[in-house]
Amino acid sequence: MKIVRLGLLGLGTVGGGAAKIIEDTLSEIERRLGGKTTIRIEHVAVRDLNCQRAIDTSNIKLTTNPMDVVTDPNVDIVVELMGGTTLAKDCLEAAIANGKHIVTANKALIAEQGNALFAKAAEKNVIIAYEAAVAGGIPIIKALREGLSANKIEWAAGIINGTGNYILTEMKKPGADFAKVLKVAQELGYAEADPTFDVEGIDAAHKLTIIASIVFGIPLQFDKVFTEGISKVTAEDIQFAEQLGYQIKHLGMASRTKTGFSLRVHPTLVPNSVLLANVNGVMNAVMAQGDSVGTTMYYGPGAGAGPTASAVIADVIDIIRAEDQPQQDRVPALGFALDQLEDAPVVSIDDIECKYYLRCFAKNKAGVLAKITQIMADKSVSVEKLHQEPCVNNPNDATLVMLTNQVNEAVLNSVLAELNLLEEIDGEIQRIRIESLGEAS
Amino acid sequence: MKIVRLGLLGLGTVGGGAAKIIEDTLSEIERRLGGKTTIRIEHVAVRDLNCQRAIDTSNIKLTTNPMDVVTDPNVDIVVELMGGTTLAKDCLEAAIANGKHIVTANKALIAEQGNALFAKAAEKNVIIAYEAAVAGGIPIIKALREGLSANKIEWAAGIINGTGNYILTEMKKPGADFAKVLKVAQELGYAEADPTFDVEGIDAAHKLTIIASIVFGIPLQFDKVFTEGISKVTAEDIQFAEQLGYQIKHLGMASRTKTGFSLRVHPTLVPNSVLLANVNGVMNAVMAQGDSVGTTMYYGPGAGAGPTASAVIADVIDIIRAEDQPQQDRVPALGFALDQLEDAPVVSIDDIECKYYLRCFAKNKAGVLAKITQIMADKSVSVEKLHQEPCVNNPNDATLVMLTNQVNEAVLNSVLAELNLLEEIDGEIQRIRIESLGEAS
Repeated sequence: MKIVRLGLLGLGTVGGGAAKIIEDTLSEIERRLGGKTTIRIEHVAVRDLNCQRAIDTSNIKLTTNPMDVVTDPNVDIVVELMGGTTLAKDCLEAAIANGKHIVTANKALIAEQGNALFAKAAEKNVIIAYEAAVAGGIPIIKALREGLSANKIEWAAGIINGTGNYILTEMKKPGADFAKVLKVAQELGYAEADPTFDVEGIDAAHKLTIIASIVFGIPLQFDKVFTEGISKVTAEDIQFAEQLGYQIKHLGMASRTKTGFSLRVHPTLVPNSVLLANVNGVMNAVMAQGDSVGTTMYYGPGAGAGPTASAVIADVIDIIRAEDQPQQDRVPALGFALDQLEDAPVVSIDDIECKYYLRCFAKNKAGVLAKITQIMADKSVSVEKLHQEPCVNNPNDATLVMLTNQVNEAVLNSVLAELNLLEEIDGEIQRIRIESLGEAS
Repeated sequence: MKIVRLGLLGLGTVGGGAAKIIEDTLSEIERRLGGKTTIRIEHVAVRDLNCQRAIDTSNIKLTTNPMDVVTDPNVDIVVELMGGTTLAKDCLEAAIANGKHIVTANKALIAEQGNALFAKAAEKNVIIAYEAAVAGGIPIIKALREGLSANKIEWAAGIINGTGNYILTEMKKPGADFAKVLKVAQELGYAEADPTFDVEGIDAAHKLTIIASIVFGIPLQFDKVFTEGISKVTAEDIQFAEQLGYQIKHLGMASRTKTGFSLRVHPTLVPNSVLLANVNGVMNAVMAQGDSVGTTMYYGPGAGAGPTASAVIADVIDIIRAEDQPQQDRVPALGFALDQLEDAPVVSIDDIECKYYLRCFAKNKAGVLAKITQIMADKSVSVEKLHQEPCVNNPNDATLVMLTNQVNEAVLNSVLAELNLLEEIDGEIQRIRIESLGEAS
């Protein structure tokens, strides 16, 4: 029996989950590998040698120095589950230099440093697999990169942060607001003590960066992703959206435009009739629109020990099958070999076109609506739907909700700037983008 | 540039679609293949040489004899899109004997003859790829076979026949019934003139056979699939189900039971809260429940030129990448090598356990309900929900709808046999199985 030896960097939630899959279902994995190959955890880097483990570590070398693992000549595949972009990067570079294949769940590292890492890996003929980095247990990298390989992908859009989706789902309950729901999410362990990465969209932007690269065949460009969080979405907005036939979802979206690619993460109104609008709680889902296949969607748990470890071990099995292939026959890390990536521009958020949800509190007096709609008409922004009702918190104000027609973002911004100057409008105007995701609208 | 030459058997809807992808996006395919490999349609078998084509065939050899294609030494990969299980089987056997890799969209052939074909292919070291055979454009084979390879799959369930799903969706409209909707489906080209294959579940049973094999690692066993069509589902059943919080879907389901595997296709009540219940029209979706990953779902178009051709060309790309690999390193056709398949029994439908929807027309007089419920109680079948209302078509009858608790099918059958003998019950009792698909119920 051939033994493939794994070196794990991290034995926390995901590392423990991966070790548990190996412990519980090794015979099934061996059966998949043809009965002649097995895997073994050889060497593990942990923070604390004396910490209690869910798995039996008596036959595993333990160290607190991850460099011990990536330089261990007995390790064939390094499984990086430590997170972060500094020490993790050094470790993976050392692993590559030592000719080891890599499995990682580290979305930040791939999104921010992937171009350089993939280039180094290609030089040393090693594989970097990262299925677990996007949408956890959903095999989304494989589906987009290999399953839809015959397609020119028009756009991909997804709910790729479970914390954010949990918060937006819970905010639909009576009396809920962002702060209250966030607190519950933190208590349940769905949100970190510092929730910035999740609620401000940075985590989603990392994943979107990766999705955009594999669907379009472009380099990873995290710094060019427009990112807007969900902390300003109110329960009232969610209710108004629902009345108008939409759900508010925190979407990562990558699309082709006439002038380049659009990469963005922001709260989005999605029509109820789109299946994605019905994805609730901590679940993730990614839609992709291909020129041949049309619309497909991939749904599942985006985080957690079991789902993430499921993707990690699937990557290990893929590497075992592919490691003896010549590099040009392997599936390239980004679906296209590095010299085949397209160097097309990423457009500014100002250049996108979509419909918008606008909500404001306006003085409840004659002529206000005429003023507002005139400013919009002057810039050729037309209103598709309008809803007005008394403001709950201020008897002198009306709440005004408008859905605009398709309009360029820069034009809309100039309208908003003028509107925000009106003394009849209290506070900032809320603006949320609308995406029909293939539905006729 | 290396040229991989395709031989197509069939240039109809799907064949034309595949040829069109190659014509329209060849440069993108070449970019995926690293810029050093291209594909070309070399030889095509058609029914009628003089038929008008959507694509330019001036550089393609045409024949009416498919054997010309599978024996052509200039053909590297045979793409079988002719359908059927007799001539298609002979052609694929000849292709294998001539050492050609195969891509097929033929679900009947794989489900009924796949075991023998895969064995012959293994002997001759050729690949048979069949992504297009299940759920059209959704890369479901890849997702289940490779993406979830770290999991022991508990069950998989799917809407895998678009015609049936279209009919059940349309039957929700006021005034619609099965016959009317089927007629519209035939006019729209969604259903064949003889709709048996689709509405009686045979097509779905073919696909379920394949899904069951790859998720469990068992031989293909089409003859053991329990198959029940949708022709007896009434619009009334669909309405009652909806009132009770369910949608009726024609599901293919493969699950592990204590005594073996259960393989079945039948109308099923699915809770509204399950995403699959919201998959409407001609769309397909497959759910899989893995021990590590939990619930995942894959959604997209299950038929049509573009979606099916998308899967076919993805298979061609996969074969080009894998053809130089030693066989033991390739992904096995069924996810497990033939000598690793598990020979576990498939259980009879009598041995399954689930909840049931029962609907009958009963005489509207005292004591009837007591009689019915006593017969059920005698066999320990308890009623979870009961709904009674005046029968629309017969003023002397009441319509009685019951949801049972979890019960063994054989026991339920004995209850139904007794109930059907009651003179107070008019006609046959309708019985539809309920599956919670992971929802707490």
